Parts: sequence; C-alpha cells; structure tokens
Amino acid sequence: MTVELIAVGTEILLGNIVNTNAAYLAEKCAGLGLSCYYQSVVGDNEERLCGIIETALKRSHVVILTGGLGPTKDDLTKECVAKVLGRALYEDSHSRERIASYFEKRGFVITENNWKQAQVPEGAIVIDNDNGTAPGLIVTEGDRHVLLLPGPPGEMKPMFEKHMAPYLNRLQPEIIHSITVKLCGMGESMVETEIGDLIEAQSNPTIAPYAKTGEVHLRVTAKAVDEEAAMEMIRPVTEELYRRFGGYIYTSREEVTLEQAVVTLLEERNLTVAVAESCTGGMVAARLTKVPGVSRVFQRGFVTYSDDSKHQLLGVSGETLKRYGAVSRETAEEMARGAAAAAGAKVALSVTGIAGPEGGTSEKPVGLVYVACFVEGAVEIREFHFKGNRDRIRESSVANALTMLRRCILDAKH
Amino acid sequence: MTVELIAVGTEILLGNIVNTNAAYLAEKCAGLGLSCYYQSVVGDNEERLCGIIETALKRSHVVILTGGLGPTKDDLTKECVAKVLGRALYEDSHSRERIASYFEKRGFVITENNWKQAQVPEGAIVIDNDNGTAPGLIVTEGDRHVLLLPGPPGEMKPMFEKHMAPYLNRLQPEIIHSITVKLCGMGESMVETEIGDLIEAQSNPTIAPYAKTGEVHLRVTAKAVDEEAAMEMIRPVTEELYRRFGGYIYTSREEVTLEQAVVTLLEERNLTVAVAESCTGGMVAARLTKVPGVSRVFQRGFVTYSDDSKHQLLGVSGETLKRYGAVSRETAEEMARGAAAAAGAKVALSVTGIAGPEGGTSEKPVGLVYVACFVEGAVEIREFHFKGNRDRIRESSVANALTMLRRCILDAKH
Repeated sequence: MTVELIAVGTEILLGNIVNTNAAYLAEKCAGLGLSCYYQSVVGDNEERLCGIIETALKRSHVVILTGGLGPTKDDLTKECVAKVLGRALYEDSHSRERIASYFEKRGFVITENNWKQAQVPEGAIVIDNDNGTAPGLIVTEGDRHVLLLPGPPGEMKPMFEKHMAPYLNRLQPEIIHSITVKLCGMGESMVETEIGDLIEAQSNPTIAPYAKTGEVHLRVTAKAVDEEAAMEMIRPVTEELYRRFGGYIYTSREEVTLEQAVVTLLEERNLTVAVAESCTGGMVAARLTKVPGVSRVFQRGFVTYSDDSKHQLLGVSGETLKRYGAVSRETAEEMARGAAAAAGAKVALSVTGIAGPEGGTSEKPVGLVYVACFVEGAVEIREFHFKGNRDRIRESSVANALTMLRRCILDAKH
Repeated sequence: MTVELIAVGTEILLGNIVNTNAAYLAEKCAGLGLSCYYQSVVGDNEERLCGIIETALKRSHVVILTGGLGPTKDDLTKECVAKVLGRALYEDSHSRERIASYFEKRGFVITENNWKQAQVPEGAIVIDNDNGTAPGLIVTEGDRHVLLLPGPPGEMKPMFEKHMAPYLNRLQPEIIHSITVKLCGMGESMVETEIGDLIEAQSNPTIAPYAKTGEVHLRVTAKAVDEEAAMEMIRPVTEELYRRFGGYIYTSREEVTLEQAVVTLLEERNLTVAVAESCTGGMVAARLTKVPGVSRVFQRGFVTYSDDSKHQLLGVSGETLKRYGAVSRETAEEMARGAAAAAGAKVALSVTGIAGPEGGTSEKPVGLVYVACFVEGAVEIREFHFKGNRDRIRESSVANALTMLRRCILDAKH
C-alpha cells in the first residue's frame, strides 16, 4: 500500500515554516508499513490544490493532507477534497456542538466563519479534534483513502496517533508492529557502529536508528499476521540490543520519554529532585513537569539567572562566584548542593553555561556548560562543549542534564 | 515567474530527515520575486523522478532540484534531468580536476564511482561546489531553467547564495517583499472578521492571516520593481492594521517574537520581572530566557509546584492555600506579589492551574488556569479555560501569560 503526503499552506511555500509535519507523518507511515513515494506542498489555491489531490489519488492508495482546515476563506482543503470526489458538504451537528462548547468554555465569542469548520463532505468519517476546533476527516472512495488533518502539529499529532494510525493499520492484510528502543548518553555514530552487523542483516524485523537531541532511538519493525507474531520476531532483537547497550537504554516503550523515565526512576527510588538553572532558564523544570503526576518527585525549581539569585536562593558563595565565575565547575557544584538543601531534596540537578550568542570568551566560549548532579551527599560535575545556536545549546544542555541525572541515580548506592 | 522545488531523497520520504532545504530555498526564491506554487519530495527512482521533472517543467519556469548528485548508483537526479530534456551526459574535465584535487587535499582515495560526479548534461552551466565534490548545474531549455544543487545544506546554501541567486535575479524583473504584523490577545477568526474588507480587496499587496499559539500573524506582501517600491505599497496597509488593532500588535518585524517584544518593553520601562510558576513548571521562564541579553530584565524565577514551596518561597499564606486551594485567584495573586517581593522586582507574573490529565474536579476542571500580573503594587488576575492535552494547556498558559504581562505593563501608569 502506498501513501502520499500533501501539506497545504502558503507559509510553507513561502518558507516561513519548515514542513515538520511531513517528516513526522512519513516516519509514522513507514512504521505502519506504507510506502511513501511522494510528498508535496501546495498553497491555498483551489485549482492547484484540486489538481494535486487528483494526481495523488491516481498514484497512491492513501492520501494524507495536513492544513487548510481553518475557519478562514483561505482554508480550502475540505472543499477541494469534496470537489474532487464529487461529494457535497453538509454541516455535522456533532462538530458544531463541539465548536460551540470549545468557544463557550473559553468565554470567546463565536464569529460566523467558525461554523465553516463543522462542514464535512458527505460520507466522511469525522474525527474529533481534542486540541482545537477543526475536526479531522477520513473520506473513502473505492480503494482510495483520503485523510485530512489540521496543520498545527499540536493538533495533528495526537489526532494521527489516536485515530488515523489505527485506521491505516486496519487497512492492511499484514500488520506492522514496531518497538522503539531509546538510548541516551551515546552518540548516533557510536550506536550505529555497535550494531552495524545487525542493521546489515536486517530484513524482517528491520532496525532503523533515528538521532534525536541527546538521544538515539532504534526502531525495530516486524511485519506479521498479527501483533503477537510480530512481537515474537521483535523480542530476540530487543534482547540483543539490551545485551549490547545495557544501561544506555532508558526505555523500549514508544510513549515513554526521557523525562518520564527519569521521573519513574525517582519514584521507584523514593527520591525527590530539585533543579537550579542558569543558562537553561527553566527548561529542565519545564521538561520534568511535562510528566503528569511529577509532583510526587518534583516540588520546586530555581531559575537563578543572576549572581545575586545564585547566592541568595542557593547559597553559592560570593567567593566562588568571584574567583571561578558563574559558569564554572565550582558554581555548578554549589548550585546543586544549595538547591538540594533549599528544597530539602535528596537529589538536585544544576546547569550553568554560556548559551550565547554574546558572553563567550576564549577561555569560556559559547557552548561551555557545566552540569552538576547531587545524589544524597555526593556530587558529580561534567563539563560540556555544545555546538550550534542559543536554542540548540540550551536543548542539548537539558537532554544531557536529564541523562546525567538518570545515570547518577542508577549509579548511586541504595 | 514561477519556481518549483523538488527534493530528491529517500531519507526525506522516510521521515529520517526534515526537508529544511525547501524552507530555505522557498524563502530565498520569494525574496527574489519568484512565485512558488509547488514543492515536492521524491525518492531515488528513475521513473518517478523523471515524471515529477516533466510535470514541473510544464507548470513552472524554474525548477530547482536538491539532492541525488552523489557518486552512488542511487543518485539519479542529473541522469533524469538529462533524459527528460533529451541531453547526453559527458565528462566535464574541469569538474574532474576539482574532484581529484578535493580528494588529494584531504588525503582520501578516489574510488571509481566518484568520477560519476564529473558527468554533466550537454549545454549545462557547471557551478563549482566549494564545500564538496558534486558540482551544481544549470540547464536551460527555451524559457525553462532547471537548477541542480547538492542535498547537504552545507554545500547547497553557499552554492545557491553565490551562484544560483544572482542567476535567478537576472531572470526576474520584479521582486516580492513581505512584512509580518504580529498580534496577541485576539483570536484568528476575530482578527479575520475585523479585516475581512481588507483581505477581500487584496491583490497587491495581499494580506494573509496565520494562527499561532496565542498569536495571529498577518503577512502583508507586495510585488514591485524593488524593495523600496514594495515598502511604499506595504506602508499604508500596515498603518491601517495599526489603526484597527492598535495595542494588540506587538511587532511588525519578522524576527521579533512575543518574548522578545516583552523583554524589550521591560527594558524600555526600566523594569525587572520575576516569575512564579506552578502548572507551567518553568516554561514562562524558559521562554523569556530564549531572548539573548534577557539578564538585564530577568534575574530569577520560581518553580513552585507544591503548596509548601508556594508558602516558603513566595509567602503564599497557609490560610489562602487551605481556603481557596492552590489553583485559585487568591493564590495566583499572592504568588505574584510574593515573587516580586522575593526577587525585589517591580513586575511579577504568576501562573497556577490544572494542566491534567489528572487533578480536575467539576468546580476546577482540567484547563482552568489563573494568571496574575503584578506591576508596581497593582495586581491583575485572569481566569482561563484552556482545552487540549497537558502540553497544549501549558503552552496556551505561557502565551496568554506573556500577552497579559505585556498588556499590564502597557496599561500601567508611568
């Protein structure tokens, strides 16, 4: 079965935004065993959009469109799909109710154009949007399936995961099942080298590495008659990966993130953690608090951007700041110790560094970051040199800080 | 004149890499006055690649292909372009010499397949690659221009800047220039309703609205002989937008973000801000600290996830927490006042809410968020009801908190 991706939006054509939806959907579709031969981007123009949908339907079984489902006159995706398939649009009362309640709950006034989002092509399956007002749609015509998803990734991704992926899986005689083995603390090329022989020998199951910031994900995919049979094939491969990578693997469950794994580990060990951040400015705390129920292990964090705040909130000594500077091994250590003491936590993580673009010197260049991890009295400090712009340096700092936190807890005597 | 972008590569089709080349080239081409109506991605497959090149040549004046110029058998871009245009390939001696010297300088051994990169279609203009071995190519056929660039951004971008952009500029009598007017605190449909007449009347310049989390961006685009002439046409439109939306507009500069605008405003008013976060868990601080040089206006933040931390770090009274709860108007106010006092800041922002998925009740459902903004003694508190998952609720909270911070500073007597 083949799939084709069409992103609708003038912003992408103008280069204002990068089409990350395509990469996301392509990866998901590959994981579902669909072959993707074409991706395209087209603007909010009826003639061109209809043309591209027609072409796609001729050459691909599944056509996934993202974007152009908004309330404005510009938004034409639904209208064009309906036109190409010769379907009329009607107002879906369920969607209308959902839109009304969405606005009501927020105390917003509904303008007339919002009702446009409740219009759906005849015969379409309507998919609720839990994160916005535009419903998703599935329209089937013979052996062709057209899937429409909203453009904002925050709406598109949960909808694809929850509704579209299961739908696509049911269309196929053989199912595709994947397990993602996630590693932290080892670079992509090192991981690839370690399993070159396994990748080489792959056919079914296959192993594919994906590099993420501070992580490498290994996707093990098997094709089989059912999920149980696929898992039978996948199991020996994941076991081999665990043998080779051991503690570098933090999970083999798709939905578990690094921060989730760290939070679970803290819970298991009955530990609480405090964080003290300078250059990451709250990003470590923000990432930990992505995890629902984090309050059991995380109660407070300090964003100490200035020297004064490091001194007053964390007790970093004036002498240390003066002698070694705010970005130093010594300050990182005192920040971690101070955060643990101030929060009454057994574990604390601190980050201090130069995220740039200004503030670097020849001794302390942009990208220099110290991370300290305190676990029940012992502190480990690491020096990093990250590359890239301010955002990249901060993101790498967060990923490596969480990796280090996990490692230090695992290594601690208990 | 129209341009079409084709990225060649199985990695993009599989979602292993994001097609950032397309965004780069699209933006550059728009700046050169070329209208881009189509972008596509296709794999290393002769039939499909030839098909897409043929289609592109029928509907666009300029076709830019990236990728597939490597030395392996997989790499087919040049071969397909030659086939579609009926040109033979020959070995370009200049390119052969450059490839030889590239390998020699690095002390690498040249394998036989490397000479494939010196093969060029008859009549092509050969463009030197200063950062790799694959030369770029320009092939002209009547009024159609086919540009071939290597896939790696580090080779593609400098080649485009130095050679392809000047070539395209010479082809094009008119340029396109855009201004983005960014609004916060008003929804997309409301914005569209307010300027329906302007959008309706659009031809040159055009106005296009784009919804972002908590923001709406209006892109005003003009076509003219040069940038100055385009700006002359854009100016009255942006003036009209300012007349209609006034304080809702936080910038009309592409590179300025909401957090940047807030930081600039604080700087202008000589104010410092402290933040106290519960459900956003550091995200407001993280977003403010994205701005380089933020240390002049932001020195510290508190992530107070537990009741104890709200009490100890911010001085929220036990009575308030007990009587009204951690998610309440009263607690939000005391958090903001306490953060300002603890940080010695004139301005403070607090966020407390229920991000879910657990913790909601019928009186205080998931999505209920209070934001309080303290400005020199006065506090404003707002109640929000956000929809969506935990991430969406937190992101909406941050965007609306920053919007409120900006509004409160603007409204404050000074």
